[in-house]
Amino acid sequence: MVGGGRGAFIGAVHRMAAAIDGQIELVCGAFSSDPQVSLLSGKDLFLPAERCYASYTQMMEEEAKLPLGERMDFVSIVTPNHLHFTPAMLALEHGFHVVCDKPLCLTLDEAIQLREKVRTTGLIFALTHNYTGYPMVKQARHLVSGGALGKIRRVVIEYAQGWLSDDLESTGHKQASWRTDPALAGIAGAMGDIGTHAENLCAYITGLQVASVCADLHTHISGRRLDDDGNVLLRFENDARGILTVSQVAAGEENNLRIKIYGEYGGLEWTQMEPNTLIVRWNDKPTQIYRTGGPGLCAQAEAHTRLPSGHPEGYLEAFANIYRNVAHCIQARLNHETVDEIYLDFPSADDGVRGMAFIEAVVQSYKEKSWIESERSKTKNI
Amino acid sequence: MVGGGRGAFIGAVHRMAAAIDGQIELVCGAFSSDPQVSLLSGKDLFLPAERCYASYTQMMEEEAKLPLGERMDFVSIVTPNHLHFTPAMLALEHGFHVVCDKPLCLTLDEAIQLREKVRTTGLIFALTHNYTGYPMVKQARHLVSGGALGKIRRVVIEYAQGWLSDDLESTGHKQASWRTDPALAGIAGAMGDIGTHAENLCAYITGLQVASVCADLHTHISGRRLDDDGNVLLRFENDARGILTVSQVAAGEENNLRIKIYGEYGGLEWTQMEPNTLIVRWNDKPTQIYRTGGPGLCAQAEAHTRLPSGHPEGYLEAFANIYRNVAHCIQARLNHETVDEIYLDFPSADDGVRGMAFIEAVVQSYKEKSWIESERSKTKNI
Amino acid sequence: MVGGGRGAFIGAVHRMAAAIDGQIELVCGAFSSDPQVSLLSGKDLFLPAERCYASYTQMMEEEAKLPLGERMDFVSIVTPNHLHFTPAMLALEHGFHVVCDKPLCLTLDEAIQLREKVRTTGLIFALTHNYTGYPMVKQARHLVSGGALGKIRRVVIEYAQGWLSDDLESTGHKQASWRTDPALAGIAGAMGDIGTHAENLCAYITGLQVASVCADLHTHISGRRLDDDGNVLLRFENDARGILTVSQVAAGEENNLRIKIYGEYGGLEWTQMEPNTLIVRWNDKPTQIYRTGGPGLCAQAEAHTRLPSGHPEGYLEAFANIYRNVAHCIQARLNHETVDEIYLDFPSADDGVRGMAFIEAVVQSYKEKSWIESERSKTKNI
Amino acid sequence: MVGGGRGAFIGAVHRMAAAIDGQIELVCGAFSSDPQVSLLSGKDLFLPAERCYASYTQMMEEEAKLPLGERMDFVSIVTPNHLHFTPAMLALEHGFHVVCDKPLCLTLDEAIQLREKVRTTGLIFALTHNYTGYPMVKQARHLVSGGALGKIRRVVIEYAQGWLSDDLESTGHKQASWRTDPALAGIAGAMGDIGTHAENLCAYITGLQVASVCADLHTHISGRRLDDDGNVLLRFENDARGILTVSQVAAGEENNLRIKIYGEYGGLEWTQMEPNTLIVRWNDKPTQIYRTGGPGLCAQAEAHTRLPSGHPEGYLEAFANIYRNVAHCIQARLNHETVDEIYLDFPSADDGVRGMAFIEAVVQSYKEKSWIESERSKTKNI
Repeated sequence: MVGGGRGAFIGAVHRMAAAIDGQIELVCGAFSSDPQVSLLSGKDLFLPAERCYASYTQMMEEEAKLPLGERMDFVSIVTPNHLHFTPAMLALEHGFHVVCDKPLCLTLDEAIQLREKVRTTGLIFALTHNYTGYPMVKQARHLVSGGALGKIRRVVIEYAQGWLSDDLESTGHKQASWRTDPALAGIAGAMGDIGTHAENLCAYITGLQVASVCADLHTHISGRRLDDDGNVLLRFENDARGILTVSQVAAGEENNLRIKIYGEYGGLEWTQMEPNTLIVRWNDKPTQIYRTGGPGLCAQAEAHTRLPSGHPEGYLEAFANIYRNVAHCIQARLNHETVDEIYLDFPSADDGVRGMAFIEAVVQSYKEKSWIESERSKTKNI
Repeated sequence: MVGGGRGAFIGAVHRMAAAIDGQIELVCGAFSSDPQVSLLSGKDLFLPAERCYASYTQMMEEEAKLPLGERMDFVSIVTPNHLHFTPAMLALEHGFHVVCDKPLCLTLDEAIQLREKVRTTGLIFALTHNYTGYPMVKQARHLVSGGALGKIRRVVIEYAQGWLSDDLESTGHKQASWRTDPALAGIAGAMGDIGTHAENLCAYITGLQVASVCADLHTHISGRRLDDDGNVLLRFENDARGILTVSQVAAGEENNLRIKIYGEYGGLEWTQMEPNTLIVRWNDKPTQIYRTGGPGLCAQAEAHTRLPSGHPEGYLEAFANIYRNVAHCIQARLNHETVDEIYLDFPSADDGVRGMAFIEAVVQSYKEKSWIESERSKTKNI
Repeated sequence: MVGGGRGAFIGAVHRMAAAIDGQIELVCGAFSSDPQVSLLSGKDLFLPAERCYASYTQMMEEEAKLPLGERMDFVSIVTPNHLHFTPAMLALEHGFHVVCDKPLCLTLDEAIQLREKVRTTGLIFALTHNYTGYPMVKQARHLVSGGALGKIRRVVIEYAQGWLSDDLESTGHKQASWRTDPALAGIAGAMGDIGTHAENLCAYITGLQVASVCADLHTHISGRRLDDDGNVLLRFENDARGILTVSQVAAGEENNLRIKIYGEYGGLEWTQMEPNTLIVRWNDKPTQIYRTGGPGLCAQAEAHTRLPSGHPEGYLEAFANIYRNVAHCIQARLNHETVDEIYLDFPSADDGVRGMAFIEAVVQSYKEKSWIESERSKTKNI
Repeated sequence: MVGGGRGAFIGAVHRMAAAIDGQIELVCGAFSSDPQVSLLSGKDLFLPAERCYASYTQMMEEEAKLPLGERMDFVSIVTPNHLHFTPAMLALEHGFHVVCDKPLCLTLDEAIQLREKVRTTGLIFALTHNYTGYPMVKQARHLVSGGALGKIRRVVIEYAQGWLSDDLESTGHKQASWRTDPALAGIAGAMGDIGTHAENLCAYITGLQVASVCADLHTHISGRRLDDDGNVLLRFENDARGILTVSQVAAGEENNLRIKIYGEYGGLEWTQMEPNTLIVRWNDKPTQIYRTGGPGLCAQAEAHTRLPSGHPEGYLEAFANIYRNVAHCIQARLNHETVDEIYLDFPSADDGVRGMAFIEAVVQSYKEKSWIESERSKTKNI
């Protein structure tokens, strides 16, 4: 693990998610840029001192020297955005599979380089757009791809949080500070932090490519250096239209990611804060409610569920689905086996490239007050 | 009543809404451009034949001849959009107060003329943007205007219907036909029909003026002559940002008007399909749910409620609130009394002007693919 | 109208409900036992003084002398419980159809007498168990009677209010006072006031007869003279089991009437506070949501809906469905026509008898701390 | 671990719950009464063969021989009900702390013996009534114990499942088979399996003792040997009243555990299927919604939450709270430290005794068709 030392947020999430299914064991880490903090953080996690590394460079080098079976099988990168690219490249160069937090990196160019490295090394690379791990999101994707809704016409994606309603970064709040610092977070604030989750969710469910965007961004908190609120008009390649709206100053909102997708015959709605429910409304028959673990689900939704219906699975379980799938893929590689197709379902470097292209197009549109065409040649998955 | 003959939709709604409180009696009508249909429609409504007029012109003239107390006190105009302006002008000219269905007319110029006529005659003019009649909408307005949320930063307004998902107008469907016909509906389809409701609701609750818009419109049904789907980026004069998204091809949606308004300290959410609930979320304390008839409401919300909490009041009751308020205002005029301030709360010609300006700005923005400043000099209420 | 003078609650509800559909006009009333109050109340309602009667006896006698067409067509009895029996009998004796508020009267014996009078006179008698007027309740009944759920096994009915959480009756609160006074309300408090609504709703939807009950009643407020809370174990004739729980001291609850009915294949849930939604859950397929005005409804649900789906209809509209149906039945009688079967759907004196039998059984069970068999010979509809 | 071999349900739940927080490692197990299955199950879990025991007796004996630090620190018993008592007694006798699935055992006498053994050994004993692990349940308990609701008057507890709507046990369904077999499950079916969860939840939140019960039980599936549905009238020692209703033939229901508790000033509602929400309704102010991780929570609710609000935590996280607390308590014992009071919060042998007494009283009441007083002398916590 790179990052995730004492006081970090997402590192602990990665560890809990990785632990649930009993397939993954934490064996080493460079938990902090401060070697002492790294060591103490590792001890908190019951690691031996010799595998609490002083830097990720050291970790990659030392672990690579260990024999297969003893050394780490993959590395999780859970640092702020500016520290994704270099350790990810390094890990791939040393032959380690990678699980990387989102967004992929700081620029589209970096993203394309990273994707290229993944392709040439042939290693497994997962990007933790964790919201696609929910069973009901998989069911939504199934309904769309199977044509149940007909041609998709309209998409409404909303991701509202309120935690940045005040100038937290001036109070020394760690999460707020790096997320509003362009050097650490990149060219976008809310749009990069949660807008890319929203974009990814839309792409995962609909399979649609964004053709052009027209965006408005705003910073409501005086002195803040990145956007904390933004709205985007979307046109898709199939001529569907949509809207993506994100905010981190939506006071009172918790983590309200919600998507509605409408086709010719019906529309579906899913909201992350009640993730075990998928609502599908029809023009000509009663609304249907699909439930995690319930009747009528596709195989992929069932395969990502641990409990009988009515036993709520949450954020960690969805996150764990990415880890579990990666673990199965790595296991299959180690055993020279073919992996079950079910486990190939996790966000990849392609998602990372598309996400970075989205951020750049949105920021450009906002600055130029105009519609921006997406650069399909760069972002399309080959 | 002008319009609302056999087979009409909104005319019957007006009649039910006007009847609930026992303050208003239907006394005459020109229910159809076909005199025979007008007569039969009037007989269905237990009216004497002599007050079922062959045309609205005839009705205005004949009724004006009757002595006060016998003649109608006001006229309701419930025809398609292209037949609002002329009968409304005629009614005002004959000294009748007016209740007019929305949108006010076909163009901003007409709207301004009509507002001018209302001002010069001093007559009462109500526009049935009925959604502002709900008690919880009034409570929302109270919370915003009282500053409970702090400065407003963000608005999300959604109005989704699915009933035009198919090419209904080709099947002879009356409602679909006129609403998709530019000669009858005006320059906008969904944006005019329901977008103006959304705009009005936003203005009513927030009191904010739109400074500029950037819009995308689309017609999803081949052959349809007006937009059936549209999305608008909003900038407000106080620097708040927002989004307004409407559709009549959101398959499976019924009449899903929903508004979220966020200020510095909290955000509120109201949805028309569960109108007796107002959700207010706070950064620093538990979410609050206000309920029609429940504790903690402002006087205006209480004054527009008929039943104890938990006895749901719906669309007709909200609509009836406009009629009841108009009735009280007219009654006070007749009695040369001052009307209680409570009853002055209904949409006016000013709302109509602002709505027409909104439609024109949205259509222009869509055509020019650019941001359009609102024409404040024309739309501001004096 | 008998009762419903100034300050009364349910009388105003009856008037609004009767007015909505434009089929019924209020022509006279004995609004209060105080002749002066009756007169003033009638003037508030735009009635001529000569038809504001000093007593219901006078009203029955005087109106009966008027020619058909001029005299009232039916009488609404909206007084407290102890004043249902006598005016209802009198009305029937004078040849007037009756709409009577619930519960039917004070004792099962009275109820049986009244039912007998209804039978012998052949007049129309409606009991305003208004919750059966909701379209989704009719859809629920349709699903059960059509066998969609299979044999019914389990019923859970809950009716919770909180308005009697304090000793309101000691403060002079009119509604609280008579409802907690055995002389005016009868032998049961909450169980009579709202328990009978719950029982009626269950009987309407399921068509099942209660075979025996085991009840617990309680008065939580010191000094109160009737129960304000009660729970009943139910056994039905088809061997289904259930529970009925009511309270008027469920602090914070508004008017929470909720019913769940489970059969072999699925279960349905309806709640009065969101009346336009009917949830049906299945063992083997996704949950279905039926909506007032939406797709997939039975004819009876459709026939009791005024607006397109998504335009919420509430308590008054459901109440109005009883009045509208009664009006059509009376109209048909007057015109010597056969009434459409749709309009025969309203609670009757049979419901009233069954309700009184239920109250008496519950109270007896509570007192004897034992199961009580229902007296089928008395209550069954012939 | 005792039980939880291949094909078992609750064993896997225990393992996931124990793993989340990285405090507990599975070191050995007697996963099945079949030694070969035990071995294979252990290998699935990456255990060495020598710690996959052939029987729980062997496990207790062999592990007790290992030095502290190598041997297991505690044992989880995840077998069917009839196999709780003996292994639990054996574990305690060998000096191991115990986590035991619910209900505690087969009879009240066994339960009392077990509690006595826990007392005399001074070992830690946790019973996995996991629903008390949810943060919002802890907040509910806080509100009641702090007096916010005033004196508690009324409790409604519902636990509805539909999975036994058919005769699954005849199809060889493992879970259905043992749960409907009196030799394995005890004298009650649904009432034992889920009724005790409901009772426990009520006791945890309210702190109230049941004074007497009057129950009806029923078996809807022909040939089934234990109740699959039951309703209980409750009287509490403080004179509150309530109802507990459970079913496993509530077709379409998933795992619908819901509790409502009403006091003098307000009422709260919590439902397990949306566990991160706690609704509190008040007589005199707007409804409040508490949310996991949100503002306004008590320390105990906060201490049992892992993620920021809006990141849903579910069944496994609540279950994990018991394991985490037990782990901290054991850790403190090993380190001779005082444990933080926060971690003392998990169900104990006292809960087990009270649960068994509840089952026995309910069954007796049903058989005798009468109210049964609870045996306080046996069940009260000393």
